[in-house]
Amino acid sequence: MPHINVDKDLPGIRSLMAFSPQTAGPMGELANLLLRSNDTLSMADRELIATHVSYLNDCFYCQHSHGAIAVCYLDGNTELVDQVRTGDANAPVSDKLKALLSIAASVQKGGKFVTPQQIETAKLLGATDNDIHDTVLIAAAFCMFNRYVDGLASNTPSDLSSYPLRAKQIAEKGYGNHIFSERQPVAESAEAK
Amino acid sequence: MPHINVDKDLPGIRSLMAFSPQTAGPMGELANLLLRSNDTLSMADRELIATHVSYLNDCFYCQHSHGAIAVCYLDGNTELVDQVRTGDANAPVSDKLKALLSIAASVQKGGKFVTPQQIETAKLLGATDNDIHDTVLIAAAFCMFNRYVDGLASNTPSDLSSYPLRAKQIAEKGYGNHIFSERQPVAESAEAK
Repeated sequence: MPHINVDKDLPGIRSLMAFSPQTAGPMGELANLLLRSNDTLSMADRELIATHVSYLNDCFYCQHSHGAIAVCYLDGNTELVDQVRTGDANAPVSDKLKALLSIAASVQKGGKFVTPQQIETAKLLGATDNDIHDTVLIAAAFCMFNRYVDGLASNTPSDLSSYPLRAKQIAEKGYGNHIFSERQPVAESAEAK
Repeated sequence: MPHINVDKDLPGIRSLMAFSPQTAGPMGELANLLLRSNDTLSMADRELIATHVSYLNDCFYCQHSHGAIAVCYLDGNTELVDQVRTGDANAPVSDKLKALLSIAASVQKGGKFVTPQQIETAKLLGATDNDIHDTVLIAAAFCMFNRYVDGLASNTPSDLSSYPLRAKQIAEKGYGNHIFSERQPVAESAEAK
């Protein structure tokens, strides 16, 4: 049960953003800027970083929401997304993305866990300053989003079949206030976790 | 040395926000909404929560920046701010604020560390749903800000005498893009940590 009185027909962060529409504004804008860009890092890469960090933070709602969005961008390749989500070193992604995922995993532990060696490796594999900036900020932002969702014990649909529909909406329209204020059919969030 | 090529004359998060002014916009707006309100939780209470979480995340720049802002709101009471910053149980603050600081400390570990008992205690001591929402989101947001600052190894002025001046500017004008784009005298950030 959520720790505060939120709309029980909205899942996860959507219920919190409906509770506090004022703070939802900049949070949605930040998500859009960090995740809806193909500027050197693709939208798929960005969602994969968000998904892996959410897995490390043990946030069921975020790892499956963002994993499902990554699947949309990767032609339905759920196997690849599951490998990256859980940190499988054999995931068939580029060495550059592997280096960035390693930096993101360090950020999840704490900012000071990122080492100069990790940065050097990523740069040697082609990562630009912008790639490194965005990786660190995506990982840091999901340390916020994950804690917001679980720190208030928001309703989490445990039925994984409900995630692809919402993911498709975001893959098509992006993040933003429209996402956080749309109520969902009750059935979708009936199985609170 | 910072991991990316930022303006060396800007300290901490200001250098990162100048590097990425687009993401600085919503981040500054979120800080303003969460920290520049006296809606049941005072601005001093909000900065104290931010300061304690930054201490727990071992972020030198943030704990001393926000500690200095709290001092501005608390008539120069550095002793009280230092007690709250470091989690001294004898700090002379209200029982309600102590309960909220305990929730914030759990959020710092991870969202799922917040217990129903902590929430119940805070509510019995007068905390509203809005107080609990804002406490969790301030703590979560500083898990982002702290990781952004240290994950990119931004320059941190080690001379504590430089913090009160910047704190006074924020106490007077609030957060926002003007804060993050103002260059500082080189001397202020010369001692990188």
